[in-house]
Amino acid sequence: MEKCADIMLQQPFPKGEMKKVFGNENPIHMEIGCGKGGFVTTLAEQNPDINYLAIEKNGDVLVLAMEKAKSMGIKNVKFIFGDATFIEDIVSPGEISRIYINFCDPWHKSGHAKRRLTHRNYLETYKRLLCDNNGEVFFKTDNRKLFEFSLNECADLGLKMSNISLDLHNSNYVGNIMTEYEKLFSEQGLPIYRLEIRY
Amino acid sequence: MEKCADIMLQQPFPKGEMKKVFGNENPIHMEIGCGKGGFVTTLAEQNPDINYLAIEKNGDVLVLAMEKAKSMGIKNVKFIFGDATFIEDIVSPGEISRIYINFCDPWHKSGHAKRRLTHRNYLETYKRLLCDNNGEVFFKTDNRKLFEFSLNECADLGLKMSNISLDLHNSNYVGNIMTEYEKLFSEQGLPIYRLEIRY
Repeated sequence: MEKCADIMLQQPFPKGEMKKVFGNENPIHMEIGCGKGGFVTTLAEQNPDINYLAIEKNGDVLVLAMEKAKSMGIKNVKFIFGDATFIEDIVSPGEISRIYINFCDPWHKSGHAKRRLTHRNYLETYKRLLCDNNGEVFFKTDNRKLFEFSLNECADLGLKMSNISLDLHNSNYVGNIMTEYEKLFSEQGLPIYRLEIRY
Repeated sequence: MEKCADIMLQQPFPKGEMKKVFGNENPIHMEIGCGKGGFVTTLAEQNPDINYLAIEKNGDVLVLAMEKAKSMGIKNVKFIFGDATFIEDIVSPGEISRIYINFCDPWHKSGHAKRRLTHRNYLETYKRLLCDNNGEVFFKTDNRKLFEFSLNECADLGLKMSNISLDLHNSNYVGNIMTEYEKLFSEQGLPIYRLEIRY
């Protein structure tokens, strides 16, 4: 991790100061659970005018993601070692405009529902952190139960959903960037679910 | 069909006069596409205080449904030979409080999207016919593409969705009444999708 200090944010996080961190006024998008970083690095390369914060709770995996970003020479991603439970310590309300959640842990036991990243408590947290206008969450999963849960949480909260896909790889959606996990999973012919949420 | 004249409504339909037709003030629910009638007759038997209008466009199948209702001695269902394109000729605005749509034709070609019973034009028609308060549509299908389309139509119209199920027979939903088609389909282990829509 030390070798990647220049692209990694440390505690205490520069909450409210992200424009200084990135050195520009570009919008900031966040990926919660970036894994090996295939998704966020591709996205960052395609969108040099957007800044990205990539959070990952598995240190070994985070190192792989940071090494990938360094080898690609990407300047518009900063990495954070952590998980969703403390995103309010990372950024200030209104500081980010989009959140990506890809293939998060489904926490299949009902007693663990509050840990799901699309639980209503998290959806309310995201609302607080996203810009007042057009704040959005882009969510993908291979887990049918988690997707069903997510649809119902959004519906119950009255959130605006769009581009709902029950089989992303056989849909009209253009420009999908696959995560490492998604590649493995979709090769088995199983459907990927996707949803956009706006506040 | 002649033998079933007492439980079948003929054109011109007694639009706005359904309370007289049923001889009481009970709420009226409608099933669009009742098939062989297994669903609506079971429902009617379980809910004697609700009246049902069951529409079916296939005459042979409609006769089977009516014979079933007669053999069961059910008094709170009336049948109509027709399809969804003329439901506004059958009932007046506010005359019904719930619509059931079970396993309708998915019309898989995009050029036929307007024929899908969850197309936004139909959803707007249902809105006009349903009571102002708590009007609802209960929708089931085995067709993933049609369900995806339906979710997006509802989301785009800002309709309130609830109890969304991506695998009804492995869900917590209690009291599901299976249609004839649903029994056949679910025996193959394939998921049934379900959605409640409120206006």
